[in-house]
Amino acid sequence: MIEKRLRHTRIYEQVVEELKDLIASGELLPGDPLPPERQLMAEMGVSRSSLREAFRVMELLGLIDSVPGKGRFVRKPRGEAADSRNMPLEDEAVLELMEARRVLDPAIAGAAAMHAMPSDLMKLRKVLSRTEKNLEDIEKRSQDDFDFHLVLSEATRNFVFINIVKMTFNLIMATHERIYSLLSDKEAFLNEHRAIYEAITDHDVAAAQALAAGHIERIYKTLQEALALEVK
Amino acid sequence: MIEKRLRHTRIYEQVVEELKDLIASGELLPGDPLPPERQLMAEMGVSRSSLREAFRVMELLGLIDSVPGKGRFVRKPRGEAADSRNMPLEDEAVLELMEARRVLDPAIAGAAAMHAMPSDLMKLRKVLSRTEKNLEDIEKRSQDDFDFHLVLSEATRNFVFINIVKMTFNLIMATHERIYSLLSDKEAFLNEHRAIYEAITDHDVAAAQALAAGHIERIYKTLQEALALEVK
Repeated sequence: MIEKRLRHTRIYEQVVEELKDLIASGELLPGDPLPPERQLMAEMGVSRSSLREAFRVMELLGLIDSVPGKGRFVRKPRGEAADSRNMPLEDEAVLELMEARRVLDPAIAGAAAMHAMPSDLMKLRKVLSRTEKNLEDIEKRSQDDFDFHLVLSEATRNFVFINIVKMTFNLIMATHERIYSLLSDKEAFLNEHRAIYEAITDHDVAAAQALAAGHIERIYKTLQEALALEVK
Repeated sequence: MIEKRLRHTRIYEQVVEELKDLIASGELLPGDPLPPERQLMAEMGVSRSSLREAFRVMELLGLIDSVPGKGRFVRKPRGEAADSRNMPLEDEAVLELMEARRVLDPAIAGAAAMHAMPSDLMKLRKVLSRTEKNLEDIEKRSQDDFDFHLVLSEATRNFVFINIVKMTFNLIMATHERIYSLLSDKEAFLNEHRAIYEAITDHDVAAAQALAAGHIERIYKTLQEALALEVK
């Protein structure tokens, strides 16, 4: 059963990679419709359900737009900054994700400080000591980041916040090599998570909000500068 | 093709209704595991994929929790207020949804005021004149509400906000008869949407944020009072 799920996951991920390559290589241009499902199924040798799963992920990743009744299209760039004209779609999506987190993260940290129970604090401590050990390993560090923010969202006792964090971190994990390789901030990352944890332990709502705001602001600025530099 | 999709939709919706009934009747209690998939497939005569779709919706609705490696469980109440001890899970989920929107809606309205293009304003005007005509019809009014907030999110040019609004309004539509029947605010609803539209037309970020905050605050308070009254 687990094996079956893994196999299924790998197939749709391969489809996502192939479609991303078609977009990156310019074979599919922004605004172009995707090839018909039947054609993609035949060319890639995948089932309709794997293909649909791949489309869903790519829509979540901001790579394609789905227009009801018209079909699926390669997303047109949406940014307005001069830089973004040459920015790959995926990098633009990463920045939009972080822009949304600038609103979400402080709100979630504040709600967590208000509602956290001892069991949540224990889970956060566990994640933090794991993070300390895994600091050199991008793969594990990104998973610890996901875990920290997921436990934070669970501490809010609000299922909408939990769903939102699951959604945004699924996107982050899909491009985590890109994101975490640009963030050479291992110590800051750990220290800021620790400070947020302390504020939540103290049930200090304002401090938790301010610390979470500072944390995501630093990450957003770092990524924005790194991605803009690459474009030049 | 459309017919097939409709049929599929109806099947998983039936599954959701049946499972909701089992929870409402007390046959399944908070914390209980759901019956095995095989059993549910046999008893309800549905496919595994319809069942999984139903589970996904119920998790999004906050009715069940999915614990990796352990299975799916009827959600335990999460509220701390005295009232919520007797509140049906679904009503609690509605309030959590509105609590999340208190954070999300002002941020989205502000970003829309910053980035809206003439085509967005035109779409908003169309939705508003439709709303005016449909004010007496709960079914159509809820769809107009969804459309207004969806166009607002599209005007942000941020795909994460768009995904979040799609997610939250899919939840609202799943319980829209309950929600909109409690909101006897047809005129306020239309006037507040109009005021938000005006602020976005003026690209007045602060006004758009404040108006959206007031709009969702009024809705949240109205629902909170109405649901608490029912419990007593």
